[in-house]
Amino acid sequence: MKAEVITTGTEIMIGSILNTNSKYLSSKLTELGIESCYHTSVDDNVERLTSVFEIALNRADIIITTGGLGPTDDDLTKETITKALGLELEIDINLEDELPHCLANMHNTMTNNNEKQALNPAGSKLIRNDIGTAPGILIDINNKKLIMLPGPPNEMIPMFENYVMPILRTNNNIVIKSINTIGIGESSLEVELRNLNIYEEGFNISTYANNGTVEIKVIGRGNDKDILTKKMNEKIKIITNNLNQYIYGFENKYLAEIVVDLLKEKNLQLSLCESCTGGLISNSITRIPGSSAVFDRSIVTYSNNAKIDELGVSSETLEKYGAVSEETAYEMAKGILNKTTSDIVLSVTGIAGPGGGSKEKPVGLVYLCVMNKKNHKIIKNIFSGERLTIQEKAAMRALYEIKQFV
Amino acid sequence: MKAEVITTGTEIMIGSILNTNSKYLSSKLTELGIESCYHTSVDDNVERLTSVFEIALNRADIIITTGGLGPTDDDLTKETITKALGLELEIDINLEDELPHCLANMHNTMTNNNEKQALNPAGSKLIRNDIGTAPGILIDINNKKLIMLPGPPNEMIPMFENYVMPILRTNNNIVIKSINTIGIGESSLEVELRNLNIYEEGFNISTYANNGTVEIKVIGRGNDKDILTKKMNEKIKIITNNLNQYIYGFENKYLAEIVVDLLKEKNLQLSLCESCTGGLISNSITRIPGSSAVFDRSIVTYSNNAKIDELGVSSETLEKYGAVSEETAYEMAKGILNKTTSDIVLSVTGIAGPGGGSKEKPVGLVYLCVMNKKNHKIIKNIFSGERLTIQEKAAMRALYEIKQFV
Repeated sequence: MKAEVITTGTEIMIGSILNTNSKYLSSKLTELGIESCYHTSVDDNVERLTSVFEIALNRADIIITTGGLGPTDDDLTKETITKALGLELEIDINLEDELPHCLANMHNTMTNNNEKQALNPAGSKLIRNDIGTAPGILIDINNKKLIMLPGPPNEMIPMFENYVMPILRTNNNIVIKSINTIGIGESSLEVELRNLNIYEEGFNISTYANNGTVEIKVIGRGNDKDILTKKMNEKIKIITNNLNQYIYGFENKYLAEIVVDLLKEKNLQLSLCESCTGGLISNSITRIPGSSAVFDRSIVTYSNNAKIDELGVSSETLEKYGAVSEETAYEMAKGILNKTTSDIVLSVTGIAGPGGGSKEKPVGLVYLCVMNKKNHKIIKNIFSGERLTIQEKAAMRALYEIKQFV
Repeated sequence: MKAEVITTGTEIMIGSILNTNSKYLSSKLTELGIESCYHTSVDDNVERLTSVFEIALNRADIIITTGGLGPTDDDLTKETITKALGLELEIDINLEDELPHCLANMHNTMTNNNEKQALNPAGSKLIRNDIGTAPGILIDINNKKLIMLPGPPNEMIPMFENYVMPILRTNNNIVIKSINTIGIGESSLEVELRNLNIYEEGFNISTYANNGTVEIKVIGRGNDKDILTKKMNEKIKIITNNLNQYIYGFENKYLAEIVVDLLKEKNLQLSLCESCTGGLISNSITRIPGSSAVFDRSIVTYSNNAKIDELGVSSETLEKYGAVSEETAYEMAKGILNKTTSDIVLSVTGIAGPGGGSKEKPVGLVYLCVMNKKNHKIIKNIFSGERLTIQEKAAMRALYEIKQFV
């Protein structure tokens, strides 16, 4: 089963918005054992959309479109595809009755152009939209499945999960495992992997780098689910045993979530003080639902004054060693440990750039200090990349050091 | 001139990574007056990549590929496209000499598979890569331009800006303006726009919603640059005059950058205290280079204890009104104003969910309090969406309120 995802919209084609729908749908298709082979995006142009759709009909068994089902004049997907398939649009009376109610839910004003959404291709089934006004459409035609979904991810995702996934489930045996590493480059990791006895027909092993972390993704396909699972477990065990020092987690679980779960399990409270990351570590933690159980506070001391006032860093230390130094990182951590009842704390100070670096202290130099009542550890890093990349890498490394220290 | 962007990589097709390259390249092509008509993504499969490339050759004048130029075995773009065009691969001796040096720059180990990168299609021109090891490739063939770039955005973007954009510049007259709004829904905004006398042949006016903000994008095309510019300015003036209450900026300049620039201009210092946003506002500010000139600190008081210790919020207030209340927001702001020398401060407290809400205080309820030494303003919001969306919308609104209060 080969699938193609078609995302429509001039906003995508002129580069105004990121296409997150293709990523989401592909990861779900992969989970379902369906091969996601093509992504296509095209603007709101009838002729081009028609040709893109015809190419897809020719090469894919499942076609999923997102976008172009909305109320405005440039929403053309339904009309164009219906015509390309030689079908007619029909009015769905029930849906028309429901529309004002849907809109009321969204605290919005009823506008005339929403009525266009009540027209649907003959013979199609509607896919319920519990959040927005545009339902999805399912057409079964010539052994192919054509699924049209609205563009906004907050509508599309629950529709796909609740109503489309049950339709697409198959008996293909596919097992996917991810191992997440930090502290080793992608090329070096690939060389390490090749030295392990894990490669064989039916298994695909790839690496993906992101903000100082590298994911190892192992995809196995086979007829016998038990043999496949056994082989997969063996491979994961070999990788885990040999590369343990770099592994921080599995299945792309957020490192912040791993840290929050670990702190919960050990009943420990965390506080932070951040300089160059400016609240990013704190925000990574607080993105995790339930983090309030283990996270007390973060003091973002961006200025030297704030480091002195809030954390009791001595002005002598700042003068003698500078704000970006082992000594300042240590005093920051000491300061937050003393003023809170937290069991574990972490401080970060560094140079995110651009500019501001020197030969001795280049852009990318970041000191982390993780500390509890008995011990502490200072980690010196030199991260490459732009300002935001350095902030992101520093935050990932900080979370990893908290995990290791707990 | 029609362009197609082809991004390759199994990581994209299985949904492991977001395709940011297509967005970036499309926005640049649009700027250059080149119509970005198609995005295609395909996995690292020779047969499918060949067919995708052949379709693109058929419908586009400019084809830009990203990905598949790296050192690993699944990097196939160069080899596949060279073959599809009937060309040969040749060894570039100079480049081979340069490779170990490039890698040394990146603090990585030399691995054998990097040598594969020294083979390039006959008759092609190399596009310099100042950051990574894989150069880009330019092929001019049958009046079409084919440009292959590496996948990592931090390599691809400077290559495109420095070496590809000069090649693609044309004399097309295209003017693009963006107006950024907050506090009005997309549908309502579109209705408001339709009531203005701004629509005419040659101009496209679209709206794009993102985290509580909506961008109005006006694209004008025409033969006479002066007339085009004059008409565009008139339209922008009409929109600005009529929708002024919602407009926070232009040309998609980050709201945080607008705030930082405004604070610099007025020589004002900012401090924050955050609860439900967990450091997100602070991080938005510190993502902007040079923000240290105006940003003193943010106290992320996630627990009630932290609110009491750090900001002097009274436990009576927390008990009587709750942590998410006008009263707590006010005391938080008062606390940070008193303990710093900042000229303007903002506090935020809210319920990001999931769960934790009630009928009186639903998930999405967020209080902001912006304050200086003379005045303050409390803003009550009810944001819809998931936890992260609520955090993002609250942060955007907070930045907007700072801007309005300065």
